[in-house]
Order: sequence, then C-alpha cells, then structure tokens
Amino acid sequence: MKTYSVAVVGTGAVGQTMLKVLEERNFPVGKLKVLATSRSAGKTVTFRDEEYVIEETTPASFAGIDVALFAGGEASKIYGRAAVEAGAVVIDNSNNFRMDPEVPLVVPEVNPQDVRWHKGLIANPNCSTIQMVVALKPIYDAAGIKRIVVSTYQAVSGAGQEAIDELRQQSRQVLAGEEVTGKVFPWQIAFNCLPHIDVFLENGYSKEEMKMVNETKKIMGDDQIQVTATTVRVPVFNGHSEAVNVETREKLTAAAARELLRRAPGVVVVDDLEAKAYPLAIQADGRDEVFVGRIREDFTIANGLNMWVVADNLRKGAATNAVQIAELLVQEGLL
Amino acid sequence: MKTYSVAVVGTGAVGQTMLKVLEERNFPVGKLKVLATSRSAGKTVTFRDEEYVIEETTPASFAGIDVALFAGGEASKIYGRAAVEAGAVVIDNSNNFRMDPEVPLVVPEVNPQDVRWHKGLIANPNCSTIQMVVALKPIYDAAGIKRIVVSTYQAVSGAGQEAIDELRQQSRQVLAGEEVTGKVFPWQIAFNCLPHIDVFLENGYSKEEMKMVNETKKIMGDDQIQVTATTVRVPVFNGHSEAVNVETREKLTAAAARELLRRAPGVVVVDDLEAKAYPLAIQADGRDEVFVGRIREDFTIANGLNMWVVADNLRKGAATNAVQIAELLVQEGLL
Repeated sequence: MKTYSVAVVGTGAVGQTMLKVLEERNFPVGKLKVLATSRSAGKTVTFRDEEYVIEETTPASFAGIDVALFAGGEASKIYGRAAVEAGAVVIDNSNNFRMDPEVPLVVPEVNPQDVRWHKGLIANPNCSTIQMVVALKPIYDAAGIKRIVVSTYQAVSGAGQEAIDELRQQSRQVLAGEEVTGKVFPWQIAFNCLPHIDVFLENGYSKEEMKMVNETKKIMGDDQIQVTATTVRVPVFNGHSEAVNVETREKLTAAAARELLRRAPGVVVVDDLEAKAYPLAIQADGRDEVFVGRIREDFTIANGLNMWVVADNLRKGAATNAVQIAELLVQEGLL
Repeated sequence: MKTYSVAVVGTGAVGQTMLKVLEERNFPVGKLKVLATSRSAGKTVTFRDEEYVIEETTPASFAGIDVALFAGGEASKIYGRAAVEAGAVVIDNSNNFRMDPEVPLVVPEVNPQDVRWHKGLIANPNCSTIQMVVALKPIYDAAGIKRIVVSTYQAVSGAGQEAIDELRQQSRQVLAGEEVTGKVFPWQIAFNCLPHIDVFLENGYSKEEMKMVNETKKIMGDDQIQVTATTVRVPVFNGHSEAVNVETREKLTAAAARELLRRAPGVVVVDDLEAKAYPLAIQADGRDEVFVGRIREDFTIANGLNMWVVADNLRKGAATNAVQIAELLVQEGLL
C-alpha cells in the first residue's frame, strides 16, 4: 500500500486529537513529523506505539512532506505557504485562509468535490459550522434552505487544553466555596454561560458567529443561505451542542427530515422522545459522527424545522474532518 | 399602614425565595403562615428574624388569609380553590391554571392591567417566559412582534433544591473521576446540556417549550405572536439565559432597541462589547431585574433583532414576580 509522509503542526488539544484520529482511522502514514513551537519542541508524543520527538517548526520542516495538518493558531499564516512551496498539501484547521477564494473550505460529507480545485491549501471549517452543515446538507438537497437561526452550546475544549484545565479548576473552586480565578475566559465559565466566543466585531456579532454565517455559504456553495447565530460557551468539557432552526424552501415534514438524516453520511439520528433519547455532548465525546435529534416541525412558519445537533468538536469539528480531507485526497489521487 | 395576612405554600427553592423577597421588598405582611406538605410540617423557617413553624396545608389553612402565594407543584390544584373560597387571592406559580381563560397570567411590567379581572386566582408565568416577555415588551410596543425563535440555557434551580444538589454532587463525581449518579435529571447534567425540560408532548415539543409559545401570547394579549422554542437545561446553579431572535413588524435598529430597553421597567441593559459586558447568569443570581445584552440587528431579515436575556429564575422567574403581583393588588386596592 502506498504511504504518505505526514506532518502534524501543533500539539495542543486539536493536534493531539489529529494524531489519535490518524492512528484510529489507519491513515497510510509512512513518515510522521510532529511540529510545534519552540515551547513544545523536545517533548515527545506517541503514535502507533512509537515515540516521536516534537520538532520546532521552520520553513525547512516540510521538505519531503506529502500532507501537513495544521491544528490551528498562527502557524499556517507563518509556515503554510512554505509548506505548499515545499510540495506538501496543507490542511489547515485555523481561521487564516477559510474565506480565501483561492482556498477550498471542505466538509467531506457536504462538498467533497471542492478538494479538486485546491492550490496546495485546503481549509478545515470552524467546529460549530462543520457539525451544522453535516446535519443540514441532506435537508438542503431535499428542500433547499432559506434561513438558519442557530444558538450554540460550545464546550471549552474548543478554546484549547488550558480552557479545559480552567473549567476543571474553577469548578473545584466553586464547589469548595473558594474565590474563582482564571485567565483563559473573560469571565467565570464554571456553572455559567458566556455569549462570547472569539472577538467581537463592529457589527455586534462575534467572529465565531460570523464564521457560521460566512462558512456555511461557502461550504454549501450557496450565497443565498441566510444564517444568524448566537454562539455561547457553556461549562462542558468536550462536545458542542446546537439548537438549529431552519426555514426550508419547500415543505419537509419532521418525519421526512428524520428519514433523510438516517440515511445521511456521518450522521447518527438519536431521536426517540419516549426513550428520552436525544443527542448529548457527553455521549458524542470521542465519536466521529454528528448526532441529530429533537427533530420537529416549526409551526410558526410554513416550511420550518427545529433540531438539536451535537458533535465532538475536537474530532468531527476539527481533527477528524481534517483527516477525512486527507483521506479524500488519497481517494481522489490528489496526494 | 395596612397589613395583610399572607400564606406561602411550599418551602422548596421557590417558597424559600418567596419569603426572602417578601422580606426584602417590605411587603406589608401582618400575619404569616408557612404551609407545606406533611413532610416539611413541624420544621421552622425564619422571616424578619422570627421563627415560623411550617404547617401542613389543609383546606382550612386559608381562613383569614388575604393573599396566598403558591410556590409550585400540585398544591394549587388541591388547595387553590379552597383558598379562594376562604377569601384569599391566590397567586400561583405552578402550571396548573396558567392557560385557564378565567385566570389572568401576569407579569407586572407587561400586563399589570390583567390583575383587575381576576376571580380569586392569578397565575405566575413560567420562569423562561417571564424574563423573555419583560425584555420583549418595549420592543413589542414600539415595533410589534411577528415571530420569536428562542433557545434557552436554563439553570438547575428551576428543577428545585434536589436538582441543585444533584448538579453539585455530579460535578464532584466527574472531577474525582468517580461514577456519576443521579435521580432528578434523566441524564448527567454536570458538564453536559440536556435539551429536555418538563415532559415531551405529542407534537415533538417539550411542555416547557410550549409554555413559552402559549404563555407569551396570553401575557402579551396577542395571539398573532409566533414563538418557536428549544429549551435546554445547562449545568448552571441559578440564572436562566436565553438567545432570543425576534422579527418585528416594523424596523427597529439595535440602537433604538437598546435605548427602549434602557428606559424599560425591570430591565437592565448590559451591552458594551469593548468592555466585554453582557448579561451573565452568575451576575443575575440574587437580582430582581432582567438583564439584556448582545443586542444586534439580525441581517437575515428586514426587521430582525438578536439579544441575550438573563434573569434569576427563582426571583424574577418565580418568587419576585409573584410578590410583585401581590404589590400590584395592594396598589390597585384589590386586596
């Protein structure tokens, strides 16, 4: 079997999950390089029972690399072009290139065809967008989508390992009646909800909210889809939940939507109210699929649906989607 | 000053808060009776530095009572009519009579005039409805409201003291790596979100969601207001948050809405993105007002607004609103 030289850039929560997912899904990794900033260089990580020393990223790091998975942050801004010039295909989980018209923004269940026009760089969408479009794609194909009103319930893992540690620490402090301290979130996240993810923009929306607005249009390839979002951080360690209200162009009953979703790739329908079965963040944790439930008609408009969409934001929302893009490149003979 | 004989029925989280709020707001309590089931009878509670023995509720308990505040549950179903027959005005926080056309459903900032047609019984709306309508009333008056899409982030205190204890216990268990146990919620609530409050109905919605749909119309006195809701329990001890998307009949800018809300009774606007100021459950805890922020135009429709609405669900969402109704009765000479 043909194997590929793979670089993973970043060793935080997403980078570590990328290594785990590459291993679990048996991606044909020949050579592996684990790259990070000087802060992590010299430490080791384990992949397929072998230890790898983390190297400091430099423009020269990408010589001989077939595919480089960038976990996030500024790294792709600094080294992304160098990696492409060195011959690697870059799959970038950061926000740096997502809306660049020269860069495909890909969710394999939704727009796999877009990998074909890549010019060296492929962007991985924002976690909250990925799970929503996976759930909406079968509905879009069947009935069209006019407008989406989404409210998110996002886990702290989306803000990295330090955020996970902060939720743990603050939860202990609250339970012990101690003063709450923190440095990752602007306000206490333990036993609280923060309607604030990423920075705020001039128009009153957060950057996270506008990612959902803009990325959805690009991935679906339809500028007419209207999206309005409220993105909220909740005290959950891992797994984003979303309340999605969608206005379709044509009528789709809840039963029909449920049936479409049951057959949709990457989707698991968990929707049995009598059994109290609906998607839960703690159950999505560690899974690669997008879980959809509470599917019901919105009776306030002619063509409306409400649903509850949950996924592991570190996996399907980041690492798994990136690895799936790499798999797609292999299938398409593009690596 | 004229004083009134007051009964508080129920000594759980809401009943206790009713006593606290009656004291804080200096309601002219002459005589006080604290009533509960036989389980709590004989225990004591403190009101204005005096101890009161909790008595078991019987139909005879209401002789000589001017106003009876029912905290919730089944009590008003069993004793509500008897209390009215004994001459008391009943203010009922339960769901038993809210949609009864003979019973006014009152939020003093929204429809104070409705107390005038009471026939002995006045219903206190559901917590999640109260804070939403307080925030929407000034917008309704200025621009009309066509449709509301609301997603809630509801604290466990809404499910009573046992639910608060369960969140505390499960949080400790998760942090200690122990097995999670529980009996109040159908699934683990610690570090998780449950899209399930109250029971599910035939139409796919939960009873809590339908309360928001139906009560909003009754309180606003407008059957044309369309409401669709997703109600979600989050691991917060006290204080409900809501992402409210509203389509008005006429155009209202975010700035105009903010200004209206600044002048609205019972509302505090917390909306300064540069200062990272927006309403937070932990800051609303212990307060009687409804906090509104993240006010911004929804660009996907001609007349749309998004906002984030937070209140103490035990206070404004229950006890405070009930006491305010009692105050209104005093002001109107109806007690």
